[in-house]
Amino acid sequence: MSEPREYAKVQGRLVIVGFGLIGQGTLPLLLRHLNVDPSSITVVTAQTTGLKQLEASGVNFTLQSLTKTNYKEILIPLLSQPGSILVNLSINVSSIALFELAQSVGALYLDTCIEPWEGGYTDTKRTLEDRSNYMFRETALKFRAKDRPTAVIAHGANPGLVSYLVKQALVDVHRDIHGEEIIPQTQKEWAELAKKLDVRTIHIAERDTQIANVQKQIGEFVNTWSVDGFIGEGLQPAELGWGTHERYWPEDGKRHKSGCGAAIYLEQPGAATKVRSWTPTSGPMHAYLITHNEAISIADYFTLRDPTGKATYRPTCHYAYHPCNDAILSLHELAGRQWREQPKKRVMRDEIVSGTDELGVLIAGHARNAYWFGSQLTAEEAGRLAPYNSATSLQVCASVLAGVVWAIENPLEGVVEADEIPYQPMLELISPYLGPLTGVYTDWNPLTNRQWPVEESVDINDPWLFHNIRVW
Amino acid sequence: MSEPREYAKVQGRLVIVGFGLIGQGTLPLLLRHLNVDPSSITVVTAQTTGLKQLEASGVNFTLQSLTKTNYKEILIPLLSQPGSILVNLSINVSSIALFELAQSVGALYLDTCIEPWEGGYTDTKRTLEDRSNYMFRETALKFRAKDRPTAVIAHGANPGLVSYLVKQALVDVHRDIHGEEIIPQTQKEWAELAKKLDVRTIHIAERDTQIANVQKQIGEFVNTWSVDGFIGEGLQPAELGWGTHERYWPEDGKRHKSGCGAAIYLEQPGAATKVRSWTPTSGPMHAYLITHNEAISIADYFTLRDPTGKATYRPTCHYAYHPCNDAILSLHELAGRQWREQPKKRVMRDEIVSGTDELGVLIAGHARNAYWFGSQLTAEEAGRLAPYNSATSLQVCASVLAGVVWAIENPLEGVVEADEIPYQPMLELISPYLGPLTGVYTDWNPLTNRQWPVEESVDINDPWLFHNIRVW
Repeated sequence: MSEPREYAKVQGRLVIVGFGLIGQGTLPLLLRHLNVDPSSITVVTAQTTGLKQLEASGVNFTLQSLTKTNYKEILIPLLSQPGSILVNLSINVSSIALFELAQSVGALYLDTCIEPWEGGYTDTKRTLEDRSNYMFRETALKFRAKDRPTAVIAHGANPGLVSYLVKQALVDVHRDIHGEEIIPQTQKEWAELAKKLDVRTIHIAERDTQIANVQKQIGEFVNTWSVDGFIGEGLQPAELGWGTHERYWPEDGKRHKSGCGAAIYLEQPGAATKVRSWTPTSGPMHAYLITHNEAISIADYFTLRDPTGKATYRPTCHYAYHPCNDAILSLHELAGRQWREQPKKRVMRDEIVSGTDELGVLIAGHARNAYWFGSQLTAEEAGRLAPYNSATSLQVCASVLAGVVWAIENPLEGVVEADEIPYQPMLELISPYLGPLTGVYTDWNPLTNRQWPVEESVDINDPWLFHNIRVW
Repeated sequence: MSEPREYAKVQGRLVIVGFGLIGQGTLPLLLRHLNVDPSSITVVTAQTTGLKQLEASGVNFTLQSLTKTNYKEILIPLLSQPGSILVNLSINVSSIALFELAQSVGALYLDTCIEPWEGGYTDTKRTLEDRSNYMFRETALKFRAKDRPTAVIAHGANPGLVSYLVKQALVDVHRDIHGEEIIPQTQKEWAELAKKLDVRTIHIAERDTQIANVQKQIGEFVNTWSVDGFIGEGLQPAELGWGTHERYWPEDGKRHKSGCGAAIYLEQPGAATKVRSWTPTSGPMHAYLITHNEAISIADYFTLRDPTGKATYRPTCHYAYHPCNDAILSLHELAGRQWREQPKKRVMRDEIVSGTDELGVLIAGHARNAYWFGSQLTAEEAGRLAPYNSATSLQVCASVLAGVVWAIENPLEGVVEADEIPYQPMLELISPYLGPLTGVYTDWNPLTNRQWPVEESVDINDPWLFHNIRVW
């Protein structure tokens, strides 16, 4: 890296909630690229794993768990100075509660995921629908009034960065097919571009090949990012943006009763739902359809409607996540334990010895078949680019940095998702931390090599149907 | 180990076909426990991985692949001496062709699996049914005439050893429930014992926790035994002995059109079929229902019929295999490649640093719920017990040794399966190589902890239904 650029100045205080993998990885980036004194930063965290880093960095910190009953008392005094920012990098702390609080005191806000309070994902007193990301998003979007302090929600790698990757990929594919570069400006223009290209499926296609020099033990969940976070979303019902071209209703599929209608959910955990997808390193793969905010927000953003409000075009959009090998084994073990958490948990970072977090989008159904565009960040390069980071964390933390910068520069936009933020300047801010940004076409589709060794129920007339993509 | 005991004398020549993991592990046991000179042994193999061992052991060997067109020419001269034995430890060499040849020249025969010629498992010109283990077994059993040279078929760890474990487990459970030890003598008495105990389900429940100090690479299938063998059986349709208590017909279930009727098959590969099972080390687990001869032979053996031939009692019986972690990852990758083999293959042996091959039977549905009985052989103990072996190979190789001894002592029994051989002397022969032989009761059943985080279709009135056991 050349000398760090200063992207923005923090006028008030910067409050970070949560100091797990992402908090630890984000802090050095904020200190590097923002004009902010460590003494103006306060970290509120229940975790003690990052204690040495906190002490070494000179920031203030308080070791406390934020709960429904104490969060106002703790946060309001910290955010009283004008121009303050609340960066929520925790899990089990309600995003909606925190951005309401931030807005109420005039502070900016950012998170990487719309989180409920603890237990919100698996509380069986609430319906599956009420525990869906779709409903968390619908609730958050009710606060989408302009002229309120900016609250950037769901702005990590995915959700977040990937919304920008989708737009760049669409521009690339259009250029490669039609020979001219056009950059849409409005939601409607973007959706029209996707429709013109006949994009049917958008996968957030991620393949994590990171490997550690410590073996997973029996009864241990190992992952390259928050184990609690992954189990939480993995046990939510699988959700996906549901395209207008789909012709087979999944047996376990359900529509949400209210809201934008862009997505459906399946009556099984995402951690039990596999799909066929593709990334450059592995080629074809089975991946997990874990519910994620971007599956819904991207499908919603790329929807065209007729004057009655009926959707006339929408791509199917979902996450297709192949976590690292140790996480594959951990998920398999978790399922065998009938989803009861392993007694031990470990987030890999310093023990990673090789591998890549290949995070991109697969844009499919157009005249060139399918195009993967994304970041191929190796563990080695991540280590060179920033301290306290792995490839997985750095893709998130760089996006957090960019989101904070955008919020400072655009302080009165209310609740905003990545899809609504201009993509080019954001990609420019994030990409120095992404390793190679690669675009690759592939001939693969979910019908490739099917019908062997047994016959399968596929529709050969439309390869990119979810019916063909899902693994039964 | 104390001084090796001599179990039997080889009168003629000993011919071993195949010298992969099992051939390599079996040779030192045969040399240790049989009265046979290395110069009376010939190994026919296409593999060169065991070349140094062959040279060091002083046996004759010929490096050649056995095919439909050359096997008679190669084998007949080797078996001409009276009292010779053909031990088939290869894959892709037809068991039926080989035991027919052996019987035709008056030689004894043993194999560990009823193999077809190369491609026999996945030849789509043949129906799924014709590629099933059930049909291979039915074809083999047509040769079951007495007063022919003994041909012990399917006599490794499983199939083979596990048939003896089932009998010992039934004797144990009966003793623990009814306070007296009875040892049935006939097939009918054994089936009546299982019925009296109300045994509904028999899992061959195996958990391999062996770990190597070499990481699995992308595009590499890693296993603790033959990769070709595992892929071959994994791609066959899942098959299971079908109990008389079952009340839910699987949507993809099919009956074979002829034969004993003890089993059914599913229209999907076993490597894509998961079931809930249990072993002492891991507790509850998801395992693969890989088709295996013992699933059919045990179900057949424990069938009671009314005078019209209708089955009045039969337990459900199938393999529930949790291979080692690297093989779990390899299977996941193979499925993602739409079952097209990885370009690289590796059988772990000398690089194994820890772990156990826990191979046993789970006998369930009786008054004590479920009882697991089997071998818990660690990698370390296997290394101490025999050279050129891992825990996985040694369980197989010790059973091969015992089968060869039995054939020598009982030379005119025709085609025989383990189920028909008295279990106690065989267990005595094999158990010095099995590590601890452990029997454990468990309260677990396939309904334990179900219905969370989503509702599932289960039948709470009969826990041990296959409907409850299968993972959807």
